[in-house]
Parts: sequence; C-alpha cells; structure tokens
Amino acid sequence: MKKIIVTPWEVKGELEKLDYTKLIKKFGTKPLTQDLLEKLKKITGELHLFLRRGVFFSHRDFDWILDKYNVGEKFCLYTGRGPSGVVHLGHLIPWMFTKWLQDKFDVELYFQLTDDEKFLVKDLSLDQTLSFSFNNVLDIIACELAPEKTHIFIDTQYTKTLYKLALRIAKHLTFSTVKAVFGFKPSDNIGIIFFPAMQIAPCFLPSILKGKLVPCLIPASIDQDPYWRPARDVAPRLGFYKPAQIHSRFLPGLGRGGKMSASEPETAIFVTDSLEVVERKILNAFDGGQPTLREQKEKGGNPDICLIYQYFYFLFEPNDKKIENLKSDCKNGKLVCGECKQKLATKVKEFLAGYQQRREKAKNIVDKFILKD
Amino acid sequence: MKKIIVTPWEVKGELEKLDYTKLIKKFGTKPLTQDLLEKLKKITGELHLFLRRGVFFSHRDFDWILDKYNVGEKFCLYTGRGPSGVVHLGHLIPWMFTKWLQDKFDVELYFQLTDDEKFLVKDLSLDQTLSFSFNNVLDIIACELAPEKTHIFIDTQYTKTLYKLALRIAKHLTFSTVKAVFGFKPSDNIGIIFFPAMQIAPCFLPSILKGKLVPCLIPASIDQDPYWRPARDVAPRLGFYKPAQIHSRFLPGLGRGGKMSASEPETAIFVTDSLEVVERKILNAFDGGQPTLREQKEKGGNPDICLIYQYFYFLFEPNDKKIENLKSDCKNGKLVCGECKQKLATKVKEFLAGYQQRREKAKNIVDKFILKD
Repeated sequence: MKKIIVTPWEVKGELEKLDYTKLIKKFGTKPLTQDLLEKLKKITGELHLFLRRGVFFSHRDFDWILDKYNVGEKFCLYTGRGPSGVVHLGHLIPWMFTKWLQDKFDVELYFQLTDDEKFLVKDLSLDQTLSFSFNNVLDIIACELAPEKTHIFIDTQYTKTLYKLALRIAKHLTFSTVKAVFGFKPSDNIGIIFFPAMQIAPCFLPSILKGKLVPCLIPASIDQDPYWRPARDVAPRLGFYKPAQIHSRFLPGLGRGGKMSASEPETAIFVTDSLEVVERKILNAFDGGQPTLREQKEKGGNPDICLIYQYFYFLFEPNDKKIENLKSDCKNGKLVCGECKQKLATKVKEFLAGYQQRREKAKNIVDKFILKD
Repeated sequence: MKKIIVTPWEVKGELEKLDYTKLIKKFGTKPLTQDLLEKLKKITGELHLFLRRGVFFSHRDFDWILDKYNVGEKFCLYTGRGPSGVVHLGHLIPWMFTKWLQDKFDVELYFQLTDDEKFLVKDLSLDQTLSFSFNNVLDIIACELAPEKTHIFIDTQYTKTLYKLALRIAKHLTFSTVKAVFGFKPSDNIGIIFFPAMQIAPCFLPSILKGKLVPCLIPASIDQDPYWRPARDVAPRLGFYKPAQIHSRFLPGLGRGGKMSASEPETAIFVTDSLEVVERKILNAFDGGQPTLREQKEKGGNPDICLIYQYFYFLFEPNDKKIENLKSDCKNGKLVCGECKQKLATKVKEFLAGYQQRREKAKNIVDKFILKD
C-alpha cells in the first residue's frame, strides 16, 4: 500500500483508504463525538449534511466555542485559501460549511487569500498569484456568504495590519519550532519560513479589529492543522484566546485515489467547468459497478468503492432516507451505473448552474467583501 | 587585546584600535583610493571632510556609480536606521554625508526606518519602536535633506510595497544563505530570519517606483555591509542593478573604546542633549594630555590617543591647515587640554543649537518627507 501524505503543501495517496481515526491520533486532535454534535444541534436546530455524514470529523476546542457562545460570547470564523487558477468541488466543502455556521450563529467571517505563500512555493509571479486571488474572491462570494459579515483579504493587499500582527507572532516562533512542525529544510527560502506567522495572524485579527478578545473558530481541511499548533502555543503569550478548529476530510477525486487535483483536470469538477464538461467527467468517473449490465443485475454494485455514491453521500443527496435507498438499490442490482451517473450529473449541473450565476453576479459586489487597511 | 566585533547588531571592542584595512579585507570590499577620490572631485568640485579624513574609507562599485553618472544615468541614495530613543553624533555621520551627496549630485534619497527589526530583536513593543521611528524622522530631517527629493519610510507603515518586494527577494534567499551571512541560530525567531529581505528591498525600490532601472548607492557604516552581499547576489536574478556602497568607520565614544553607545550616556553626545550636558560630557572626555599642566608644557600631549582631537579631526575642524596647527600645538605643549576642550565644546554647542532648532521646525514639515503606499 502506498504511503498517504497529508501536509499543508501535499495531500497524496489513495485517499479513500485514508484512516481518519488514525489521522486524529497522529495530529493530536479530537473526534467530533455524538455528544458534541447534540450540543451543537441544541443551538442550530439541525445538523448540516457534512456533520451527519462525517465530512467534518475532528476538532480542537469546538466544545469551548459552543460554551462561549452559550454564555453570550460570539466567536468569529476564519478560513482561507492558497489562491490558484481553479477551484473544484472539494474546495467548496469548508466554504459551504462556513456559510452554514455563519448563518446559524450569525457571526463574522475573516477569509484570507495567501497569494504570498503561493508565490513563494510555486513557479508563479506575484501578478499571477494576485490575479488568481481576485478570481478566487468571486468563487468565495458565490458560496452565498453574508456581505455585511464577511471580510475577505489578500495578503499582499491587506499587508499593513497583517504584517504587524505577524511580527508579534514571529517574535515567539523560532526556526527550530517551525522546522519541527513543517519540516523546513535549510534550502527553503526565508519567505516561506516566515509565512506561518502570516497564516496565524488572522486567528487574532478579530480581537485586534474589535479591540476585545474574540474566540476564533477555523473550519478547514485537516491538512492545514499544522499551522494551528504553533498558533495555539503563541496565543496565550500574546494575550489572545487559542484558536479553535473544526476539520474536514477530503472529497475524493473522480479517478482512483487522491484528492481532487487541479493538475489532473479529469479527476475534479471545477466550478468554472461548462455543464457539458461536468456531465462528461461524471459519466467517465470510476464507479463500483459490474463489467456488464447482466452481472450488475445479478450481483449488484459496490457503493463502498464507488465515487458516484460518495458524491451523492457527501454532497448531493442530503436526504438520509433517499441515500439509504440509493445504497440498497445499488447493492440489489436495481440501479444501473449509467442511470445513477446521469442522476448525479443532473444534480451537479443544477448546483453549478446556480453557482456560476452567483459567481457572475459577485463581480458587482466584490467591494462589499474586501477588507482594507 | 580584546576581540573587536563588527556585525549589524553589535559593534564592540576598543574601536580606536580597529584596523580598517583589515576590515576591508575581511568584508571583501574595496578601499576608497586617491584615484577614485579624484574622479569624484571632478564631478563635485571638492571633497567632503569625511572623504579627506578617511571617515568614509571603503566601497563596493562606487566607481561604477560615478561612471553611470558621467554618462547621464543618475543614481538614487538609500540609507536607513534601526529606530531607537536617541540619536548621537556618530549616527549623523552617514546622514550628513548623504546630504552632501544629495546636494552635489542632485539625487533622490530613500531612507528606511526598520522598526520591525528593532521590535524583533529588542524587548520593545511595536508601539515603542513606531514612536522611536517618528522621533527619528525629525532627527533625519534636521540634517537638512531636500524635502522634494527625500523619501522616508517606516517598515510597519510603508508595508504593502515593501513586503511585496521583500517576497521577491526572499524567494531567492535560503535559510542556509542568511545563516552563513548573519550567523542565525535555530533559536532565532522567524521574523528576524525573514528581515534581511525587508532591508534589501529598498535597494530596488527606486527602480520599482520609477518603472526603470536606477543605480542605487548606499552610504552607511561598515557594520551594515552583510546585508548588501546577498542583495548583490539576488539583484541580477531579479533584473536589478547590484546596489553600490560607500562605507564609513565609527566615531569613537568619549570614553575609552567602543562606538558611541546609547546605553552608556556619558560616552556619547546625543542630539537632544542640553548644551550644558554637552559641555560637561566634553570636559569629562578622555584626552591625550599629561597629568599636570607643567608636564603638558614640557612633554606635550598625545593627539593620537586623544578623543577631543578625533572629534576635531573627524567633525569639527574642516580646515586642513588649522587641524595641522592644532596637532602640532598639542604636541609642542602650546595647547592645554582644558582650553582645547572648551574650544571643542563651543563648536559642538554651536552645531547642536542649530541642529536642535531645525529639529523643532521639522515637526511642521514631516508630511513632505514621508513615503506612502
């Protein structure tokens, strides 16, 4: 079995085989227990699909965030993106969940675009990473975040406030520490060595901007967790709350293994794909069906390894009864793959058509979202 | 003999014994030869005291700067300061010389205040280092720099442009490189490890702001030289000219050894000292005189070890004939120390009275000097 690698820069390997329980142990986080979900449900009235189906599966101090909320101390949300040309469905997962949290708790969101990081680690110019950032702002706004409560900022634009905060953090982070956490080598450039301070800074930004202590909750995929360990170490030394996190797993790609990857276009559904392309990608996706229709009817399909089923399960079939039926129909051979793929394609196209419309409209309201120094 | 240490963070030891020829060898710079000074004199018509008396003694590519100037390609000046509470006469040396260069060549000056650096290495808050910066802006303006051609900027204020440029530099500087140049240790914080990119950035700032290649000349004391070595390595990779430098020696303190130090107030003349305090400091300074007046008249004094003589030589007696007379009068026992000190005190007080007036007036014209993003 190939090694599975999960770091902020690299997520590689056969992700459908990734053992998320082991990841919790390895990263030292805590599982989202039923008790905790019940506690959340008491506030929100319902649980998001991503919680019921285990897309968000791990956390640090999420219980503390709820306790604070219950005594009237509202938190802020913080998430981010390393800007690149294309956003795929996998990227939307934390953002959609963030939107849900924003609505349910009526809280503000700080959204960081780390164009500096992308510039430092990729063969890209600052103009390119900035242009990606502006594009990604549209992708983010299209997730229906509340304009009056969402503050998007790009590192090389909102630099003054961010750099000052990063300096305060950097003063407490030694090279030894970041080397241990991120595995930096002497051949790494000094920009990327400093960068953890820039990504940690927004954890404390709400407290700075509000002039009072504000708890911070970070919904993000688990590979970003290394940043929050030094963030939590530094917080009390600077007089801030430790940032809390809630971690998502990865949406598998449409081919075998790996998260959706921008470098393998056929394995991912990009939010800017035409509806025809989306349909083709889904029809060509790896499924759990039998080689022939006759065998399918006789033996049934295998939803456990089927990516079509996973897309229904994690994203496109929120109804618990219906997803159960879909699973048993597949296993019983009642459902054939072509038909099932067509159904998914219809749902994805419907979703994307709406998303793409919102993305287009986002161009007119960008200013409402951008945080300025 | 105690070791003499010369690094950007520490200049320590008996500086009057510092062998500047050895320093040129150690740092790999070039001496300011008579030929080069003649070449300069052809343009400027005269040579500044600091050049005639060897205060500026070393350079990199200063000849190239003059060649460029002679074919019509004007350079920009860049110098800087790590802001702290007090500025002493030693600090003014590069600034006074910079003013002279600005006047003679009619060129623009970029002046950096590295409050980020001071914050990262000292037990100071960002508010403190910023407040020092604003104070130092007055100290700088009081050197009579041309408002329309002088651009002063503070790192945590003029951050957007500077950080972007620093990122481009940082991408080409590995931890190995800065470790080799600055002797960083794993226990150093990641802010100071990134900082060389922030201090190198202004070398290329004029080219960025003018949208064309501009040669850059840095007048600064020799201890800052380590920054310009990686700056020169990186320049061609980013498509900029290598920055040229002209290096000054240190003005000795009024006690024995060491450069003037803010931490030993009696050894330095601060620009904000009252004229009474200045007089006292000079009268108490270490001199080359004999224990008694009779011995002084018989044996004469020793100007070579006398700090009073050095202050005349380096700063307060620009007339070459007069300084010669002063020396021989001292050696012959014609001059007694008390009288000589009184003469120096009068000159220093005269200078400082004017400086302090200009510093007061500077408060009204700060805006003309501050560079904004």
